[in-house]
Amino acid sequence: MEISLKADYALRAVLHITQATNSRPTINEIARSEKIPREFLAKVLLDLTEAGILKSFQGVSGGYQLARRPAQITMLDVIEAISGPVVLNLCEPNQKLKDGTPSASALMHPFFASLEKQMIVILKKQTFAKFPARSRK
Amino acid sequence: MEISLKADYALRAVLHITQATNSRPTINEIARSEKIPREFLAKVLLDLTEAGILKSFQGVSGGYQLARRPAQITMLDVIEAISGPVVLNLCEPNQKLKDGTPSASALMHPFFASLEKQMIVILKKQTFAKFPARSRK
Repeated sequence: MEISLKADYALRAVLHITQATNSRPTINEIARSEKIPREFLAKVLLDLTEAGILKSFQGVSGGYQLARRPAQITMLDVIEAISGPVVLNLCEPNQKLKDGTPSASALMHPFFASLEKQMIVILKKQTFAKFPARSRK
Repeated sequence: MEISLKADYALRAVLHITQATNSRPTINEIARSEKIPREFLAKVLLDLTEAGILKSFQGVSGGYQLARRPAQITMLDVIEAISGPVVLNLCEPNQKLKDGTPSASALMHPFFASLEKQMIVILKKQTFAKFPARSRK
C-alpha cells in the first residue's frame, strides 16, 4: 500500500523546489540535499516537466522552478504525473461466480471505490503551499 | 498505492469463506470460484491460518472456516496478516539538510502519518459482516 519510490522522490523534489531559498535549484543540489539518486531524479524531473508541474532552465542560471504557484500544485497532481491515476485495488466490479452471484472481488468493489475516493480528496486538498516552512528545530 | 495482489487474494478468500453456503469451502473451490491461482492461494490460506483468522480442517469434510465471527475480522486484520503494518510512505521524520533544516521527506512526514491513520481507521471499521450478501442481480 506504499506510494511508489518514484512518486516519493517526485514529491520531495517538488517540495524542495517550492521551499528553495535560491530561485532555481539544480538537479545536483536537489539530489544531494534530499538524498535522491541522481539518475533516478533525472527521470522524475523529466516527468514533472512534461506534466507541466516544473519548468526547466538551461545555462549558467539554469535549474528547476515550479511552473505554477505552490497553492496550485497538489500531492495528487505530482503522484498522478508519476504513477498515473490512484488505484487502490483492481477489483472487478462485474465478476460473477458460476451460479451467477457476484464474486468476492465484486462484493468488495464499492468499499474500495469509496476508500479510493476519500484518499484522492485528501491528496487533492494538500497543496505544496500547505507544508510547514523549513526552519531549524 | 495499490494493495498487494497477495493481500487482495486474502481479502477475497476470507470474504468467500464468510459468505459460503456450504460450511467449509476447500482450497479448490475458493480458487476456482474467485479465480485465484491455486498455488498462490495455498500460501495465502496458510498465512491467514497462522494469523488466527482462518481454521483449516483436514479429511473428507475438510476445508476452511473463519476462526472468529465475521464481525470480529476487519479488512485491516487480513491486510496486516499478509503484508504487515500498513505503511503509506517511508518518510524519514528526522532527516536534515546540511544546513540543519528538515529535509522535504521530514516536512511531508506529518501529512503522510495523518493520511495513514485515516486509512487505518477506515480499514479497521470495515468488518467482514459489513459486505452485502451475495445475491443474483
